[in-house]
Amino acid sequence: MGMSIEVVVLISVIASVIGLAFAVYQRNWVLAQSAGNDKMQRIASAIQRGAQAFLRREYRAVAILVAVVTVILLILSAIEGTGMSPWTAVAFVAGALASGLAGYFGMYIAVRANVRTTQAASESLNKGLRVAFASGTVMGTIVVSLALLGVAGLFLLFINQIENEFVAVSALAGFGFGGTSIAIFARVGGGIYTKAADVGADLVGKTEANIPEDDPRNPATIADNVGDNVGDVAGMGSDLFESYASSIIAAITLATLGSFTAGASVDDAFRLAAQVFPLLVAAAGIVIGIGATFLVQTKEGATQEMLLGSLRKGVYSASAAVGAAVVAIGLLLNLGWGVIIATLSGLVGGVAIGYFTEYYTADSYRPTQKLSESAQGGAGIVIIRGLALGMFSTIAPVLVVVIVTLVATAATGLYGVAVAAVGMLATLGITLATDAYGPVADNAGGIAEMAELPKQVRERTDALDSLGNTTAATGKGFAIGSAAMTALALNAAFIAALSGQTPENVIFTVDILDPRLITGLFLGAMLPYLFSALSMLAVGSAAQAIVDEVRRQFREIKGIMEGTAEPDYERCVGISTDSAIRQMIAPGLIAVAVPVGLAVLALIGQGNFIGELVGRETIIGMLVGSLISSFMLAVMMANAGGAWDNAKKYIEAGHFGGKGSQAHKAAVVGDTVGDPFKDTAGPSLNILIKLLAIVSLVIAPLLATAPIL
Amino acid sequence: MGMSIEVVVLISVIASVIGLAFAVYQRNWVLAQSAGNDKMQRIASAIQRGAQAFLRREYRAVAILVAVVTVILLILSAIEGTGMSPWTAVAFVAGALASGLAGYFGMYIAVRANVRTTQAASESLNKGLRVAFASGTVMGTIVVSLALLGVAGLFLLFINQIENEFVAVSALAGFGFGGTSIAIFARVGGGIYTKAADVGADLVGKTEANIPEDDPRNPATIADNVGDNVGDVAGMGSDLFESYASSIIAAITLATLGSFTAGASVDDAFRLAAQVFPLLVAAAGIVIGIGATFLVQTKEGATQEMLLGSLRKGVYSASAAVGAAVVAIGLLLNLGWGVIIATLSGLVGGVAIGYFTEYYTADSYRPTQKLSESAQGGAGIVIIRGLALGMFSTIAPVLVVVIVTLVATAATGLYGVAVAAVGMLATLGITLATDAYGPVADNAGGIAEMAELPKQVRERTDALDSLGNTTAATGKGFAIGSAAMTALALNAAFIAALSGQTPENVIFTVDILDPRLITGLFLGAMLPYLFSALSMLAVGSAAQAIVDEVRRQFREIKGIMEGTAEPDYERCVGISTDSAIRQMIAPGLIAVAVPVGLAVLALIGQGNFIGELVGRETIIGMLVGSLISSFMLAVMMANAGGAWDNAKKYIEAGHFGGKGSQAHKAAVVGDTVGDPFKDTAGPSLNILIKLLAIVSLVIAPLLATAPIL
Repeated sequence: MGMSIEVVVLISVIASVIGLAFAVYQRNWVLAQSAGNDKMQRIASAIQRGAQAFLRREYRAVAILVAVVTVILLILSAIEGTGMSPWTAVAFVAGALASGLAGYFGMYIAVRANVRTTQAASESLNKGLRVAFASGTVMGTIVVSLALLGVAGLFLLFINQIENEFVAVSALAGFGFGGTSIAIFARVGGGIYTKAADVGADLVGKTEANIPEDDPRNPATIADNVGDNVGDVAGMGSDLFESYASSIIAAITLATLGSFTAGASVDDAFRLAAQVFPLLVAAAGIVIGIGATFLVQTKEGATQEMLLGSLRKGVYSASAAVGAAVVAIGLLLNLGWGVIIATLSGLVGGVAIGYFTEYYTADSYRPTQKLSESAQGGAGIVIIRGLALGMFSTIAPVLVVVIVTLVATAATGLYGVAVAAVGMLATLGITLATDAYGPVADNAGGIAEMAELPKQVRERTDALDSLGNTTAATGKGFAIGSAAMTALALNAAFIAALSGQTPENVIFTVDILDPRLITGLFLGAMLPYLFSALSMLAVGSAAQAIVDEVRRQFREIKGIMEGTAEPDYERCVGISTDSAIRQMIAPGLIAVAVPVGLAVLALIGQGNFIGELVGRETIIGMLVGSLISSFMLAVMMANAGGAWDNAKKYIEAGHFGGKGSQAHKAAVVGDTVGDPFKDTAGPSLNILIKLLAIVSLVIAPLLATAPIL
Repeated sequence: MGMSIEVVVLISVIASVIGLAFAVYQRNWVLAQSAGNDKMQRIASAIQRGAQAFLRREYRAVAILVAVVTVILLILSAIEGTGMSPWTAVAFVAGALASGLAGYFGMYIAVRANVRTTQAASESLNKGLRVAFASGTVMGTIVVSLALLGVAGLFLLFINQIENEFVAVSALAGFGFGGTSIAIFARVGGGIYTKAADVGADLVGKTEANIPEDDPRNPATIADNVGDNVGDVAGMGSDLFESYASSIIAAITLATLGSFTAGASVDDAFRLAAQVFPLLVAAAGIVIGIGATFLVQTKEGATQEMLLGSLRKGVYSASAAVGAAVVAIGLLLNLGWGVIIATLSGLVGGVAIGYFTEYYTADSYRPTQKLSESAQGGAGIVIIRGLALGMFSTIAPVLVVVIVTLVATAATGLYGVAVAAVGMLATLGITLATDAYGPVADNAGGIAEMAELPKQVRERTDALDSLGNTTAATGKGFAIGSAAMTALALNAAFIAALSGQTPENVIFTVDILDPRLITGLFLGAMLPYLFSALSMLAVGSAAQAIVDEVRRQFREIKGIMEGTAEPDYERCVGISTDSAIRQMIAPGLIAVAVPVGLAVLALIGQGNFIGELVGRETIIGMLVGSLISSFMLAVMMANAGGAWDNAKKYIEAGHFGGKGSQAHKAAVVGDTVGDPFKDTAGPSLNILIKLLAIVSLVIAPLLATAPIL
C-alpha cells in the first residue's frame, strides 16, 4: 500500500496531538493533588523560583547564540551557490524553540509534582509513586510529541515549499541543529549546576558539619534540589528530544538520498515509503507509550521489587507492542523484511543496553557489590576499581552497537542504521517517563526532610528515589546508546549528502591513510576529553564557590546550626546559577565552533596548500573519531558514576560496616568523583557527538556543492 | 651519493658495536664502585634476587608463547600461497631474544647500581648522580645498539636470502613482533608487580602503621624496590626497544613499497637510499648519544636546577647534533629536503611532547600546583581535578602528532610518517639514560632508609629521585608520542602492503561507512578500555594480597614494629611475583589474539556471509580505532598520574599544610589512583597499539595474497 506524505503527516500530527492532550490531562491531575502544608509549599516555591530563574537565565544566554546562528544561516542561504535554503534557519529556530519548550515543561511539572509527591507519600507509597510517575509521563509525552510534530510538520512544509527534494530534506536538519544547540547548554549548564550544588552541599554539610542530606540548616539544600530539576529533568528532556528528532531526520535524509543496500533495485514508491516509515513508527510509539503508562500500577503494600516490576511491565509491554507495530507498518508500506529487521534490531539493542547498564550499576548484581567491598581498602582502591568497572562496562554496549550496525546495514544499507536508531527511540515516551520520575522522587524526599515530616514519609520517598536510581541508570545507558546510533545515522547522512546528492547508492570512499583523515580522527578523539575536562573543572570550581558560601553562612549567621535562624538559601541558588551559566559557554561553543571552523578551512583551502592540511576528510575523521571516543568515555563515566553511587548506598544499607564506617567514607569519595562523571560530563558527551554530526549535516550542502575533492 | 646496503649495514653494525662496547665500559665502571657496608649489600642482594626471580619466571612464561607463535609462523610459511616466509619466524625469535636481553641487561645493571649510588651519595650528591646516570647509559645504549644490530643484520640477511624484496621486508616485521611480544608482558607484568608492591606497602605501612616509606619494618619494602627494577627498568627497556626497532622497520617497509608523495617520480636509487636512510640516522644517533653522555657532568655543590640543566644539556645537545646528522645524511644520499624535513619534524615533535608532559606534571608549573591546592577540598576534588588535568593535557600531544603527521606526509608521503618516528627516536640512547636512572635513584633511597644510613644520604638520594621523577614524566610522554608515530607508520606499512605489494604509490581506499570498518573502529576503541580495566583490576587484587600479607606479618611476627624481629620480605616478593605473572597473561593474550582472530575470520569469510561482517576493513578499523583511543587514554593516565604524584610531593615540601595535613591525605589518595594509571595501564597501552599494528603487518601477506575484496 502506498501512502501519500500528507496522510502520514496527518497521522503523525494526530498522534502528537493525542500525546499533548494526554500530557495536559496528566498535568491537570498532578496539579489537582494536594500540595501539603504551608511549610512544604514554602519550600517547594523556593525550589520553583530557583529552577525558573536558572532556566530563564540559561535561555536568555542561549537565545543570543540562537540569534547569531540564525543570522549566519540566513546569510549563507542568501549567498549564491552555497546550496543552502533559508528554510534551514526556520527549522533551526523551530528546533530551538521546541527543545527549549520540552525542557521547560518537564521542569514546570517536576517542580510542582515534587511537593505533591511528598504529600501523597505521607498517605501511601503507592500514591507517591502515582504522582511522581504521572509527572514523568507529562515530560516523556511532551518530548516525543513536540519532536514528532516539529519534524512531520516541517517535512510537509519543506516538501511543498522547496522544489529540490534534497534541499528540502537538508533544511530539515536545521530542526535537529536547533534542538541540539539548546540541549548542549541545558545538559552542560544543568549538569554543572546540579553537581556543584550537590557536591558543595555534601562537602560542608555531611562531611564538615555532620548534618544529614537535605537538612534545612544547610544553606545549599534548596540549590541542591533546584539542581535535580534543571539538570536531570530539563537537561535530559532537551537531550532526548534531540536524539528522537534527529534519528527521524537522519532516516528521512538517507531515504531521500537512497542509501539502501548497494545494488538493490529501489523505485520511487519504495523511497517514498522509506521516507514516511520513521514518522509512522514514531506515531505508533507515542500512542503505545501512552497506553503502556496505564500498566504502571501497583497494589497497596507493594515491595520495591513489585514497584520495579510494575515500571518494567510498562516499558517491556511498550517495546513488544512497538515491535509488532514496526512489523505491521513495514508490511503495510511494502518495505519488506530488511527495513523491519533493521528497525527491530535497534529496538532490541536499546533494551539490551539498558539491561547491561543495570547489571553494571545496580547493587543487586556482583560488579557493584564487589565495588562496595573494595571500599574497605580505602578511597584509592575504590576509585581504581570504579574506573576499572566503568572501563570494563564498555564491552557490552560496544558489542550491541556493533551488532545492531552490522545487522541493520546488512538488512537494508545505511538507511538501516537510521531506522535502527528510530526503533531504539520509539519507546522513548515511556522510558523517559520512568526516568524523569526519579528526580521528582528525589526532590520529594528533600522536601520531606526540610519540612520535618514524620520519618515514615522520608522512608517512602527514599524507596521511590532508590527505584528512580535504577531507572535513571537504565535511562542513561539508553540515552548513550541511542545517541551513538543517531550520530552514526547522521554521519551516514552527512557523508551520503557529500557524495553529490544523487538518489543512487552512494558510497564515499576515502584513503584511510589520508593525513587529513588521520588528523581529523585524532582531533575528534580529543574533543570529548577536552569537553569533559572543562565540564568537570567547572563542577569543581562551582562546588568550591558553594563550599565557601556555606562555610561563610555557618560562620556569620548565628543560630543556623541550632535551627533558630534561617540560612540564606537564595544566595546559594544565585551562586550556582551564576557559575553554571558562566561555565557552560566554553564547552558549548567548542562543540559548535569545531565543525564550523573545519568547514570554513576546508572551503578556504580549495586549490591551495591549506587544502593539503584541511579538507572534507578532516571533518569526516573528526566526526568518526569523536563518535567512538565519546561513546567510550560516556559509557565509562556513566557506569562508573552509577556504580559508585549505588556502592555507597549498598554500604549505607548496612554492608561492610554501614554508615560512618571507613568503607563508607571511602565510598563517599567514590560518589563525589562519580557525580560529575554521571551527571555532567558523561551525559554532555551524548550531545557533543550529536551536535558535531548535525552541524556537519546542516553545512553539508556547502561542502557538497563546493568543487573540492 | 649512492651507498650499497652492505656498506650501510656495516656502518650500522659498527655503531652498534661501539654502543655495546661503551655499555660494557660503563658497566665495568659502575661495578668498580664501592657497594657500601654489609647491611647495604645484604639489602641490595635481596632486591637482586627478587628481580632476577621475577624476570626468570616472566621469561619462562613468555617463552611458551614465543614457542607457540614461532611454530604457527613456521606452519603458515609452509602453507602454499600464504606469501609468508619462514624467515619471519627467525626474525620473531631474534626480536624476542633481543628484547628480552635489553630488559635483562637494564635490570642487571640497575640492581647493582642502586646500592653503589647509595654509597656514592654518602660521599657526595654529584658522585651519586654519576653512578646512577652511568647505569642509565648502560641500559639506554644497550637498547638502541641491540635494536639497530638486529634490524640491520636481518635486513642484510633477508635481502640476500629472499628473492622477492617485499617478502624480505615483510619478514623483517617479525623482529618487531618478537620484541613487542616480550614488551607487552614485561610492561604489564612489571607494571602490576611494581604498583601492587608499592600500593600494598604504602596502604598498610604509611596509612595504618604510620611508618615511613622504605622502613625496614615494612615486610613489603623489598618487594617495592624490586618492583622499581622490573617495572620501570626492564619493562621500559623492552617497550622502547620495540618502538625503536619498529620505527626503522616501518620506514624500510614503506621505502620498499614506494610509499612516497603521490605522483613523485621515484627511481630505484631513491628507493634504495630511502631504505638505508633510517639505518644511518639510527647509527648516527647512537654515536651522538654516547658523546652527549659526557656532557652530563656537574660541579660539586650543584643545585637541583643545575642537575636538571646538566641532564637537559645532554639531551638537547644530542637532539641538535642528530638534527645536523639528519640533514647531512639526507643530502649525502640525495634524498632531498622532503625526507629531511619529515625526519626533523619527528625530532622536534619528540622534544615538544616531552616539554608539554613536563608542563602538565612538574610541580614547578601551575597545573600541578593548582592540583595540590585543590587537595585542600578533599580526596574527591583532587581526583576530579586530576582526571580533568589528564584529559586537558591530551590537547598538546594530539596537536603535536597531528602537525608532525601533516608536515611529514606533505613532505614525503607515508614514508615521511615512518622517518618522523625514526627521527623522534633517534636520541633514544640518551633520553632513555636520563629516564632509566630514576628508578636507580629511587632504589638507592630505599636502601639508604633500610640500611639506616645518616639522614643526609637519604636527602641526597631524594634529590636525585625527585630529578628522576621529572625525567621519568618527560620519558613517558616521549614513549607515548613515539609509540603513536611508530604505530601510525606500521599501520601505513600494513595498509600499503595490503594494496598488492607493488612498488607504486599505493593508496588503499575504503568506504568510511562500511559497517565492517565502523565495527572495527568501535572494537578497536574499546580495546584499551578493556586492557586498562584488566591491568588496573590486577593491580588492585595483587595489592590486596600484599596488604593481607603485611597485616598478617604485623600481627603474627612479634617484634617487627619494635625492630627486634625481621619481617619475612621473601614472602611479599613471592606474592607480588605470583600475582603479576598470573595476571599479565589475559591482557597480553588479548592483544595478540584480537588481530589474529579478526584475520582468521576475514580469511574464512571470503565469498560467504561472514565476509559481510568481518573483512580487512574490520582490521583496519580496529587498528585506527585502537590507536586513537589508546593514545588519548595513555596520555590522560600518564599525565594525571604524574601530576598526582608531584602534587603530593609539593604538599610534602611544605605547601598547603604539608605532611600529615588533610590536604596531604587527599593527595595520597590521588597518588594511589595515579600509580596504576602512570606505571601500569598507561605505559602498557603504548605496547598494545604497537603490538596490534605489528601483528597485522606480520600477517599482511596472508591478507594481501588472499583473493578477498
